[in-house]
Amino acid sequence: MSAVARVLRRHTRPAVAMRSIARPVASSRSFSATAAFWAHRTETDAFGPIEVESSRYWGAQTQRSKQNFDIGGPTEHMPLPVVHAFGILKKAAAEVNLRYGLEPEIAEAIKTAAQEVADGKLDDHFPLVVFQTGSGTQSNMNANEVISNRAIELLGGELGSKKPVHPNDHVNRSQSSNDTFPTVMHIAAVLEITQRLLPALTDLHAEFQKKVEEFDHIIKIGRTHLQDATPLTLGQEFSGYATQLEYGIDRVKSTLPRLRLLAQGGTAVGTGLNTKKGFDVAIADEVTKLTGEQFYTAPNKFEALAAHDAIVEASGSLNTLAASLFKIAQDIRYLGSGPRCGYGELSLPENEPGSSIMPGKVNPTQNEALTMVCAQVFGNHTAITVAGASGQFELNVFKPVLIRNLLSSVRLLADGCNSFNAHCVQGIKANEGRISQLMNESLMLVTALNPKIGYDMASKVAKNAHKKGLTLKQSCLELGALSEEDFEIWVRPEKMIGPSD
Amino acid sequence: MSAVARVLRRHTRPAVAMRSIARPVASSRSFSATAAFWAHRTETDAFGPIEVESSRYWGAQTQRSKQNFDIGGPTEHMPLPVVHAFGILKKAAAEVNLRYGLEPEIAEAIKTAAQEVADGKLDDHFPLVVFQTGSGTQSNMNANEVISNRAIELLGGELGSKKPVHPNDHVNRSQSSNDTFPTVMHIAAVLEITQRLLPALTDLHAEFQKKVEEFDHIIKIGRTHLQDATPLTLGQEFSGYATQLEYGIDRVKSTLPRLRLLAQGGTAVGTGLNTKKGFDVAIADEVTKLTGEQFYTAPNKFEALAAHDAIVEASGSLNTLAASLFKIAQDIRYLGSGPRCGYGELSLPENEPGSSIMPGKVNPTQNEALTMVCAQVFGNHTAITVAGASGQFELNVFKPVLIRNLLSSVRLLADGCNSFNAHCVQGIKANEGRISQLMNESLMLVTALNPKIGYDMASKVAKNAHKKGLTLKQSCLELGALSEEDFEIWVRPEKMIGPSD
Amino acid sequence: MSAVARVLRRHTRPAVAMRSIARPVASSRSFSATAAFWAHRTETDAFGPIEVESSRYWGAQTQRSKQNFDIGGPTEHMPLPVVHAFGILKKAAAEVNLRYGLEPEIAEAIKTAAQEVADGKLDDHFPLVVFQTGSGTQSNMNANEVISNRAIELLGGELGSKKPVHPNDHVNRSQSSNDTFPTVMHIAAVLEITQRLLPALTDLHAEFQKKVEEFDHIIKIGRTHLQDATPLTLGQEFSGYATQLEYGIDRVKSTLPRLRLLAQGGTAVGTGLNTKKGFDVAIADEVTKLTGEQFYTAPNKFEALAAHDAIVEASGSLNTLAASLFKIAQDIRYLGSGPRCGYGELSLPENEPGSSIMPGKVNPTQNEALTMVCAQVFGNHTAITVAGASGQFELNVFKPVLIRNLLSSVRLLADGCNSFNAHCVQGIKANEGRISQLMNESLMLVTALNPKIGYDMASKVAKNAHKKGLTLKQSCLELGALSEEDFEIWVRPEKMIGPSD
Amino acid sequence: MSAVARVLRRHTRPAVAMRSIARPVASSRSFSATAAFWAHRTETDAFGPIEVESSRYWGAQTQRSKQNFDIGGPTEHMPLPVVHAFGILKKAAAEVNLRYGLEPEIAEAIKTAAQEVADGKLDDHFPLVVFQTGSGTQSNMNANEVISNRAIELLGGELGSKKPVHPNDHVNRSQSSNDTFPTVMHIAAVLEITQRLLPALTDLHAEFQKKVEEFDHIIKIGRTHLQDATPLTLGQEFSGYATQLEYGIDRVKSTLPRLRLLAQGGTAVGTGLNTKKGFDVAIADEVTKLTGEQFYTAPNKFEALAAHDAIVEASGSLNTLAASLFKIAQDIRYLGSGPRCGYGELSLPENEPGSSIMPGKVNPTQNEALTMVCAQVFGNHTAITVAGASGQFELNVFKPVLIRNLLSSVRLLADGCNSFNAHCVQGIKANEGRISQLMNESLMLVTALNPKIGYDMASKVAKNAHKKGLTLKQSCLELGALSEEDFEIWVRPEKMIGPSD
Repeated sequence: MSAVARVLRRHTRPAVAMRSIARPVASSRSFSATAAFWAHRTETDAFGPIEVESSRYWGAQTQRSKQNFDIGGPTEHMPLPVVHAFGILKKAAAEVNLRYGLEPEIAEAIKTAAQEVADGKLDDHFPLVVFQTGSGTQSNMNANEVISNRAIELLGGELGSKKPVHPNDHVNRSQSSNDTFPTVMHIAAVLEITQRLLPALTDLHAEFQKKVEEFDHIIKIGRTHLQDATPLTLGQEFSGYATQLEYGIDRVKSTLPRLRLLAQGGTAVGTGLNTKKGFDVAIADEVTKLTGEQFYTAPNKFEALAAHDAIVEASGSLNTLAASLFKIAQDIRYLGSGPRCGYGELSLPENEPGSSIMPGKVNPTQNEALTMVCAQVFGNHTAITVAGASGQFELNVFKPVLIRNLLSSVRLLADGCNSFNAHCVQGIKANEGRISQLMNESLMLVTALNPKIGYDMASKVAKNAHKKGLTLKQSCLELGALSEEDFEIWVRPEKMIGPSD
Repeated sequence: MSAVARVLRRHTRPAVAMRSIARPVASSRSFSATAAFWAHRTETDAFGPIEVESSRYWGAQTQRSKQNFDIGGPTEHMPLPVVHAFGILKKAAAEVNLRYGLEPEIAEAIKTAAQEVADGKLDDHFPLVVFQTGSGTQSNMNANEVISNRAIELLGGELGSKKPVHPNDHVNRSQSSNDTFPTVMHIAAVLEITQRLLPALTDLHAEFQKKVEEFDHIIKIGRTHLQDATPLTLGQEFSGYATQLEYGIDRVKSTLPRLRLLAQGGTAVGTGLNTKKGFDVAIADEVTKLTGEQFYTAPNKFEALAAHDAIVEASGSLNTLAASLFKIAQDIRYLGSGPRCGYGELSLPENEPGSSIMPGKVNPTQNEALTMVCAQVFGNHTAITVAGASGQFELNVFKPVLIRNLLSSVRLLADGCNSFNAHCVQGIKANEGRISQLMNESLMLVTALNPKIGYDMASKVAKNAHKKGLTLKQSCLELGALSEEDFEIWVRPEKMIGPSD
Repeated sequence: MSAVARVLRRHTRPAVAMRSIARPVASSRSFSATAAFWAHRTETDAFGPIEVESSRYWGAQTQRSKQNFDIGGPTEHMPLPVVHAFGILKKAAAEVNLRYGLEPEIAEAIKTAAQEVADGKLDDHFPLVVFQTGSGTQSNMNANEVISNRAIELLGGELGSKKPVHPNDHVNRSQSSNDTFPTVMHIAAVLEITQRLLPALTDLHAEFQKKVEEFDHIIKIGRTHLQDATPLTLGQEFSGYATQLEYGIDRVKSTLPRLRLLAQGGTAVGTGLNTKKGFDVAIADEVTKLTGEQFYTAPNKFEALAAHDAIVEASGSLNTLAASLFKIAQDIRYLGSGPRCGYGELSLPENEPGSSIMPGKVNPTQNEALTMVCAQVFGNHTAITVAGASGQFELNVFKPVLIRNLLSSVRLLADGCNSFNAHCVQGIKANEGRISQLMNESLMLVTALNPKIGYDMASKVAKNAHKKGLTLKQSCLELGALSEEDFEIWVRPEKMIGPSD
Repeated sequence: MSAVARVLRRHTRPAVAMRSIARPVASSRSFSATAAFWAHRTETDAFGPIEVESSRYWGAQTQRSKQNFDIGGPTEHMPLPVVHAFGILKKAAAEVNLRYGLEPEIAEAIKTAAQEVADGKLDDHFPLVVFQTGSGTQSNMNANEVISNRAIELLGGELGSKKPVHPNDHVNRSQSSNDTFPTVMHIAAVLEITQRLLPALTDLHAEFQKKVEEFDHIIKIGRTHLQDATPLTLGQEFSGYATQLEYGIDRVKSTLPRLRLLAQGGTAVGTGLNTKKGFDVAIADEVTKLTGEQFYTAPNKFEALAAHDAIVEASGSLNTLAASLFKIAQDIRYLGSGPRCGYGELSLPENEPGSSIMPGKVNPTQNEALTMVCAQVFGNHTAITVAGASGQFELNVFKPVLIRNLLSSVRLLADGCNSFNAHCVQGIKANEGRISQLMNESLMLVTALNPKIGYDMASKVAKNAHKKGLTLKQSCLELGALSEEDFEIWVRPEKMIGPSD
């Protein structure tokens, strides 16, 4: 079969195989139905020969890992941003190795194959799960094997022959799993944060800013300890949310400098054995060029392999962001509670029928989804903290679980913010009638009288009104605290939403 | 100076010294003022001589630890329940060692001194912090030294002479820090849980049960997704809280069996080297006798020294309890929110003025204290989980931080429940007028019409009412959904609070 | 097209569509290629009509959720055990509703369709993610819609017509999302724990018990504080691990009683409105019959909807189990460290080449995978704790994230234990030569001399040997501590691994 | 009694009373002994009169809180840095209020009294616990009452009279608990971080830098996956630790900008009602002047009251730091394990006798204390995260538990680092003999031969040596992989600790 024919076959068929990835139960059935259909080839590694399905580019070490780590099923695959970052890195390495003497034909084939990995064209050839070797060695070998075989194919060679493109000697040249995996962790993290999360946060912040202006004129009752308090504008209330997001963006950005440092060039233990001087800097430059994001070689490679504090730090900023979003989503769903027996100050958009038994009920489902996202981010952060603290000597061997949780938090927060933005925030309406009614019933405008009648008398007025169900004005007059005229002058909500001159 | 005189002096003076424990800043000043006043004696250990304040019973190893672990200040002292459990254990050991040949006079003196430790009479002589040796060795030696010196004193000997009562050879006979500290962890945990926490939970549960009955007749609007839902009684709502507490008690109790297992008899690595056969069982029996709580010797001492899964497990039950209490306290403060711009269904007791600026405002402060307790318990649980997972070979060396966090959770939950019970739950009043008003305004009674007019029509009725601000009945009639007569028959809240016959 | 033909088509094609679930990038491409290929039908709900791909059984509410909650991608789908439990529940409900008057033909069709869901045959028709409505309403409707349409198909009706089998009126009869989703949470949890996790733990425990016996005769140095300590047998050391697992099994089992309680019958707020008396008990009985696991109706439905303490509790037991496994896996990898510059007491099986750069190096990869699993379980537990604490009034709206994390922990622990068992524990070999050499070099056998020469002299002997690089015996003789003859009598490791008579 | 006499009496006596704070059991006894001794005075607030011990400056609201929140005992007192920060803030407020019209005599007395609070002279007059009102209102009132009474005393007035210095009208003028408490949270956090933590980190980093140079020449075996790997210098290994600390300092500093923002001026809900324009800025300037640390007024006061993301963020940086320190302390104790049956590459200082039963054994106790500190910090961080996420509307009411946990983490990390530095790191010695022996036995130098003999042959050489117990050279010669001459040229550890030219 010609290389082209083999490629074609491969591009039309993976779909079926992916069922095994998507749904294990169903897939085992479909596999049994089609087993006779698949050919196998023999791949080899230091452990000897092993059979691999011939439609797949991976080799012996990937196949072994697939069999030895049957943990968690299809939802636990190594995240795709890591796979794609391997494509970027391996392409960069081929380019740099070319300068250091790698044969141009081989370098070119590697670069082409690596680009396909980076582009997501070979995702189906990365079947390994997160819960494998703690260094991510097997995913590095997966990348080496897929790129080697695909490059061999491009050059008309025989899959599994390791000729003319050897997964270790060529694709992995001057590299070790111990420096490639931390490198792809940082590449994937930076790209997902800058291209997925920050735009989502920026959009959500902008939307809240719009609401700040839209709600600028609406004076409402404040609530502290859940109790009625002095008034503020709804715009002011939303400005708190906007500020939380603004700072949240700053927080996330403040962790990027240490994520932009790449371990590549440290090889096995951080010394850079088996690389040439300058290799590390050249890789960082090349990755910068390929991604459009600035990366630097890590000044200390020992730290870069043995610790993943930068991941823990970044997760800390996401944890803070989740705390912010939890508060915001929680507030908004309470403010929208009702329709008749809650706060009812806001109307949230109706996106779907709410209850299967209670017709007409519409629920703050986006807020629920977002607060669930936040709970997950808190959990991911604990996993990352434990894993980050558990490095040993020259290597932290919790790398896959670290990056999996970080990327999960980034993705969930980004998607959660986008969904919340599109399906909730943009459609929030203020129920001005209800807001106004509540504010005017409140006793807390009494605070405005503190400077006039003193704290103790103000307290008496409020308590008297509360006890007897009076308005503040009625209570003031009843107690002779001040005249009606003075009351009108002093108790003016619009004068109570800022410091005095 | 006679022993008696020395004791007297000791009992009248520690107060001053305790300032150093209570408030470090002030204490350093008061110490400089009184330094000349204090005499010192020389204590010795394998490291040589060291000076100890003569008013203190502790010896060389305690003094060394005090100097070497200046971490966290006075709030980080080894929890008193651990100190008192050491008194119990050392008394039990003296009793058992007596049977194995310890001289009766020495055994008696040790028992007397140990009882003083158990009774809290010598608390001031336990100055060490949690953040010390991870096996708690130094607190074990602290107990050995204090008991030895106090026993020496009782027998008319010279403090620091180790004669006639040696801290290692007599007080610690057949013991190792590695088995005593896990033993006191379990003794302290069981006593604090059974004598402090479970009574508090039982009381709180009983109080909620009272409310279930008290509120049995009050029909109110239900809320799901914070949205108005079908009705239930306030008693039913509170029955959910009562059930959470009932199960919480079960959960805490379900962890006791493994806490009742004592490591004593395992000595250094779990083998029981340097003990006699039967020593372990005898100790457990003796501790049972002294405490009135049932303890057993751990069937496997290796597990008992190297792991503290029983502490992690117990903390897990407290974590669940905190999740329950968080929910309960949160619900109640929302139901009490207002007075005029919140849910306002409950009135919580007023225990103090709420705001320094807003007179008349009374806040749900007990709920706030309790939810803060819960947050702390969640945090303690994380600390315990990490510490529990980090044992190495024959010993877990996170023992002090494990027991500190467990005891903190037990104490805070017990006190928090008692305070919440006394100052909030007992005084909760239902605002029946408000409850009734809200329920009658609600649209959700429409659910009662599902069986009569079908889901889709019921949905239309609710939406129409919502849109036009109508009552349900008005909406039904407007849409011709059913007759007024049928409405009255079908929509009866009191028929909606349970399944039909 | 006949129903059968439609079914056939459906069963041969989903594979392609699953690409969209498995790999979003690739799938969007394949979709654009095949878009023209798909037909659509119109489904309706209270919000109006919406287009659904005609090869899918789901209806309007599922489709809406799919569009409104584009969060997290394919790895975030509602876990399959939840989907299958919906099949079980809906079958049970049809059976019970039959007794309460549901038409037999409809009931039968629902039961057949529900059984297909339970059997995993319709997995591809459950496309919703975890981060949706917090009550899981949309997944309940997904089940209702799929079962309704599949039942309609079986009866020769038109998909989307809701006739003769209506998703709400028939499939969801006497149910609410608010009681079905908690019910399937408990069914899925119990089944996964009893059928997946407990067998894996039992197997692993049995394997460790075998090792206890196999290693019974091997005396080795103990290690406390990582420092050489008194000896024990390797069998004793492994008995600690076996005990941890034995208790772990007890812990997990101790949480089952409260997971066996089903919320079904509580309907919207826990009152059971719109059900008949006895419905709840009948459902629990029927689920028991269908699953072979004992379930009971929850005595208090308010708790069952508003709180998920049983999930938090179960997660607490998994958290403890993870702490145990972390310790065990950590110990074993250190004991296997080397081959020449570590502890080297154990040889772990070689399952794959270790390093892409260091030939001959074989790594404790199963231990790494298992400790990563533990870190994930710790994280999942935090997510569950926060979500469990965050219920509000009559409903906890963090249901999907709660069950997702619990099932993740169960699955990962089960698979992780099986993998660790098969690929590590079973193949562990003791390096008896190395073990013996280390023990004989150790100074800690000196402890055996404590009763003979006293603690202080024993200390001197050890220090002298340490300082001068002597053996213990040489040091004893040099210091004249005791005779060579006595040394041989007293220092006998085989006498040091238990208490004396 | 004259004011002076009263002051004198107060300054000589609190020590006794502090026993109640330090040790509750003992104190109740000493209190009963001395109860007759204490006089009381009557204080009043909006709730009426209440008796306060006459030796105390606090007033009615403090007394009420003391009685209503009996939670946790003496270790749970509001942290002293918060108390002292109240002194700073109240002094600043008096100064600013002076400019806005406060009578100079009153302002001066307030400033004097506030300075005493700031200086720690009145610590004994702050008896409240953390688990109180969630806004910290009662601690704010405690400060107002103490300062008011002390100022009254200074001016010769009568304690409890509120004349001439009123706790609300004068000390708390233009303030609310809702803005003062967040303000002191930030002041305390910044001062503790900059004055306690950062110096400790800087010192520890400097010490590690020294070790980097001291150990520069010592080549040792690297370890990845705990398995022998290629060599590096001990200096390089320590450079990883130094880098972790360097970045850790950066991380902590990166959170300061948002901690330097003060809420003061927001009053009750963030609007600044009852303050004058410019008050907020003036306070921040004054606090800056008093502390020598730069503070700014928060641009958005709504965020500053309702959220405490800055605390969560800061805790995130401490969490990362704890992960770093955990790894460092863990590595060093393993490298120091032995003396004969562990890694034994480092000697850690002997600070105390290790075991009460095993003479001669010295344990890595400082590492144990530090890793316990880290576990606590992880726990504190979880508590902070939950508390930080739980703000509601205009106020987060988890303030005291937030700042308590942050300050605990800061203090423990600072003290832990200082102790670890002084008692461990400074005294670490390299065991060069052992290090050299291990390295020369290792097989991993084979990696140096990869470029010479190829990956596959190098793998064979290593495996052959491993199997037969040969040295690498012997194995090479036996397999004819290369000549002895070439071996000597190629396998040179000193050539293996960096990239080649």
